[in-house]
Amino acid sequence: MRLALGIEYDGTDFCGWQRLSHERSVQAEVEAALTFVAAHPVEVTCAGRTDAGVHARCQVVHFDSDATRSERAWVLGANSRLARDVAVLWARPVADGFHARFGARARRYRYTILNRPVRAALAARFVTWERVPLDVEAMQRAAQALVGEHDFSAFRTVACQANSPMRNVHAIAVARRGDEVAIEIEANAFLHHMVRNVVGSLLPIGRGERAEAWLAELLQGRDRSVAGPTAPASGLAFLAPRYPAEWNLPPEVTL
Amino acid sequence: MRLALGIEYDGTDFCGWQRLSHERSVQAEVEAALTFVAAHPVEVTCAGRTDAGVHARCQVVHFDSDATRSERAWVLGANSRLARDVAVLWARPVADGFHARFGARARRYRYTILNRPVRAALAARFVTWERVPLDVEAMQRAAQALVGEHDFSAFRTVACQANSPMRNVHAIAVARRGDEVAIEIEANAFLHHMVRNVVGSLLPIGRGERAEAWLAELLQGRDRSVAGPTAPASGLAFLAPRYPAEWNLPPEVTL
Repeated sequence: MRLALGIEYDGTDFCGWQRLSHERSVQAEVEAALTFVAAHPVEVTCAGRTDAGVHARCQVVHFDSDATRSERAWVLGANSRLARDVAVLWARPVADGFHARFGARARRYRYTILNRPVRAALAARFVTWERVPLDVEAMQRAAQALVGEHDFSAFRTVACQANSPMRNVHAIAVARRGDEVAIEIEANAFLHHMVRNVVGSLLPIGRGERAEAWLAELLQGRDRSVAGPTAPASGLAFLAPRYPAEWNLPPEVTL
Repeated sequence: MRLALGIEYDGTDFCGWQRLSHERSVQAEVEAALTFVAAHPVEVTCAGRTDAGVHARCQVVHFDSDATRSERAWVLGANSRLARDVAVLWARPVADGFHARFGARARRYRYTILNRPVRAALAARFVTWERVPLDVEAMQRAAQALVGEHDFSAFRTVACQANSPMRNVHAIAVARRGDEVAIEIEANAFLHHMVRNVVGSLLPIGRGERAEAWLAELLQGRDRSVAGPTAPASGLAFLAPRYPAEWNLPPEVTL
């Protein structure tokens, strides 16, 4: 039987999603917890691998098991084995054709910037600090150039293993709430470091160092070397992937 | 010259505000940073000592120094020496009569409960988990019994060193935002563990285990042993003290 799971984590103290020897990975800890509950080895496949320090509000994974367990038993059993910074939110049996990665039609990320004169303390794990007051309206206008199907080579790390640089950005919104500026971006999928590289090029626009049109020029130029630096991991959170309604997943991950 | 400082911290990895040998305290780390900037030993006095695991959005301290430093130099110099989980928000020269503790006319705390079926991961450091859906309206109505000048012996830990159990609660509000239930309470001052003990008695009312009138009965009975347990430290944050406008402090700590 195939199962889908929603997983939340604080990525600060992990080397990222992917299992690596000798380092704490979310994948390895989730697999160990599920292996305990299933009483057989479990391997999971996720919707979107996150880098070291990147968080997830609702990562989705799938795995196969012949163990007879209720949804509640999967959730409570796994959570009793998981460390404080990872939690399984829900478990749902799914049809065998479900694939957490290939089945996702959209993914949404949020990048949070603490925009005040002094660095973060309370929110240090979840934000990036920018001391220069940001022109959020300019960032919002500039960002709209990314919406649609484009070649995102300008915002792709050299380490990216995707076959194509084409991605379809459904929406991007830059908004301030008090001291915090949030950049939310939804696309069919993302290239490696794409959100952090977009944010790294929106920041100079927000600081007034670059014109609003710069982001559109970068996109068209497809040259990573002239775009802004990669913004730090701490500000980034994978909010959720979205799947077609036919899979009967919880509303927060359904289109 | 006397200076006042606003300080933010994530209390998770501290033994509390107060300096103790062999353990990480906020006071010791702030004093070490200020001692470095002042180039002479600095001792600080705070508005409200917080326990282990309790956070502060704007703790206020005062200290004396003859060093000639700009406000900016105090802030940036201290922050360059402080760990990631503590930050000085502002520094302000104040008249010699200013006292961070005795001068505060009001203090405000917020207690945050994550109210959902599974425990926290992302917010684990900043919330307490309650799986039973809480009746926030019942908690809000019950809590109003605390407003005014009362003997708060029912919500006072035996270790409390205050001379009097009388405190004046200015306002208390219980509100839900999504999965989170926040309890904000402002008083002239608080007894030791008073907020966490009030929350510990509001929770059974929210879960429907106790009638709304129970909180008023506990207050009148003045018997700590029949009230609810002390709620965990992680959900508690000291938002700010408030001082009379004559001290010319930043608006967030001024009445």
